[in-house]
Amino acid sequence: MRLAVVGATGMVGQSFLKVLEEYVQKGKLRIDEFYLFASARSAGRKLPWLGGEYEVEELTAQSFDRGIDVALFSAGGAASLQYAPIAASKGCVVIDNSSAWRMDGKVPLIVPEVNPEDVQWNKGIIANPNCSTAQAVVALWPLHKRYGIKRVVYSTYQAVSGAGMGGWNDLVEGLNGRSPRKFPHPIAGNCLPHIDVFMEDGYTKEEHKMINETRKIMHQPDLPITATAVRIPVFTGHSESINAELNSPFELEELTQLLANSPGIILQNDFTNNEYPMPLYADGRDEVFVGRIRRDYSVPDGVNLWVVADNLRKGAATNAVQIACLLNTTV
Amino acid sequence: MRLAVVGATGMVGQSFLKVLEEYVQKGKLRIDEFYLFASARSAGRKLPWLGGEYEVEELTAQSFDRGIDVALFSAGGAASLQYAPIAASKGCVVIDNSSAWRMDGKVPLIVPEVNPEDVQWNKGIIANPNCSTAQAVVALWPLHKRYGIKRVVYSTYQAVSGAGMGGWNDLVEGLNGRSPRKFPHPIAGNCLPHIDVFMEDGYTKEEHKMINETRKIMHQPDLPITATAVRIPVFTGHSESINAELNSPFELEELTQLLANSPGIILQNDFTNNEYPMPLYADGRDEVFVGRIRRDYSVPDGVNLWVVADNLRKGAATNAVQIACLLNTTV
Repeated sequence: MRLAVVGATGMVGQSFLKVLEEYVQKGKLRIDEFYLFASARSAGRKLPWLGGEYEVEELTAQSFDRGIDVALFSAGGAASLQYAPIAASKGCVVIDNSSAWRMDGKVPLIVPEVNPEDVQWNKGIIANPNCSTAQAVVALWPLHKRYGIKRVVYSTYQAVSGAGMGGWNDLVEGLNGRSPRKFPHPIAGNCLPHIDVFMEDGYTKEEHKMINETRKIMHQPDLPITATAVRIPVFTGHSESINAELNSPFELEELTQLLANSPGIILQNDFTNNEYPMPLYADGRDEVFVGRIRRDYSVPDGVNLWVVADNLRKGAATNAVQIACLLNTTV
Repeated sequence: MRLAVVGATGMVGQSFLKVLEEYVQKGKLRIDEFYLFASARSAGRKLPWLGGEYEVEELTAQSFDRGIDVALFSAGGAASLQYAPIAASKGCVVIDNSSAWRMDGKVPLIVPEVNPEDVQWNKGIIANPNCSTAQAVVALWPLHKRYGIKRVVYSTYQAVSGAGMGGWNDLVEGLNGRSPRKFPHPIAGNCLPHIDVFMEDGYTKEEHKMINETRKIMHQPDLPITATAVRIPVFTGHSESINAELNSPFELEELTQLLANSPGIILQNDFTNNEYPMPLYADGRDEVFVGRIRRDYSVPDGVNLWVVADNLRKGAATNAVQIACLLNTTV
């Protein structure tokens, strides 16, 4: 596979490099040629990867002329809108981490634990979901298959790295008493119920993404969902309080075992030993951690879950690399 | 009024002193005699208050022999169980911030904006609610009176000061790389879905408190409620994502105005100017801040709220002092 990373110097780009390195070392993915692209500003920088050193090239319309099979994009929506179709027209499959193509009806939006089959109908662009959505659907999908999901209420606890280097720096600087530059308010010692821009209906775009992308990935276009997305002063790892009403009765023990045995999930559910998912310990991990599983007695068939994952890994780079592996097996 | 603070040297005790000072200065409360009690360990310490200096006395069975009218207790459940009945037997009214008496059928549990009338049937002990519950019911009660509440889903974002000095120190020390002493896991850069102890059903006691105390304060013993309570690395100010299903249709504008005009609430709901409640700015304030008010389209009559308050003020000291004022007007 000839593979390129577009937006190699950003926060997610750096995660792409780490995850790809691990996947190659573990023999999960073979990369024959490796290219790094970024904006003109970063061109010429050299980045270490798998024992070698790779020079970052400026992304241009000619970048994909050399026969690249797969390009992992994380360079922002504008770059994706401009360059993904160019790459696709030259036979490259783009796996795009921006939100630009996710809700396009001609573009599959994939979480490999949920809808790997959607890779089949790609036309050269595949969308990688929003970070909060990716980890949520890994936990919800086994419940949906077994019991059916009737309604979901999301409340998120999202790390600053989800807002890139700028978000990370705002927390570092804020802890030293300096004013924020990326966020509209201080994040150190605070939480902001505000991720991405506000929409006309008073929801944020992040909340819309969680609602719409969950529906698309799970092929449930009318699934009732509501969401509140909140930034908290944590560096890495998104946490989610998920309340789900199911369509049929369940035994809590069976539901718990179902989650424990589902792909991509690590159960951390032993409250007698203070074991539950936490963002600090999800850092650097590829899996989704699920715990605090308990019956919600306020509805007939409700359940509460606490779901945590590394937002730069399963929420971004890992999921994209998993999609690249799917392509590899289907190509 | 002859008033005593029991547990004067703790985190909530210190807030009692500040809030009482402000209430006296503003003419909202008249205090003729003022006493401070704490454990033997703190006895003899002198604390400044209202321009003077007051010596902390050891709390004993004789402490209430001198004719104290009202005692604000925040010295832990064991001290409350032991000394509140003694104080009450001597004609003192105890306003108790611990959880010891809250669910006792003979003890009113009061949030003055919601159920001030319950002060009438007190028998010498009045319970002050859990911090997360107090701020939530201030926002929910106007909605319940106007539309009826059908079901509530709480997800909390709670500050470390809710766990007292030990919690506060864990965050300070954790930011400097040291291990936690109060919490079972590090809180700096992390969040813990674990507040108070775990119960047999997998919920924490904090979550039980939110469910049971909301029902008691609102006189709705069967109200369907579920809760997930989470500690986040914020010093002061609890935030809550509250999803409520109502019993009747509403206009969003009318509901918003209703909240804006309800006692104890400050509306911060102008998302076009990035205005919403945040714990950093609720610090030191007595009110409950409500915003991010939006229709939940996943049910017929649902609404999402984001509710923030200073957990040491409205969540503890301010609410107790408000109860003392109620007593003052009814005595």
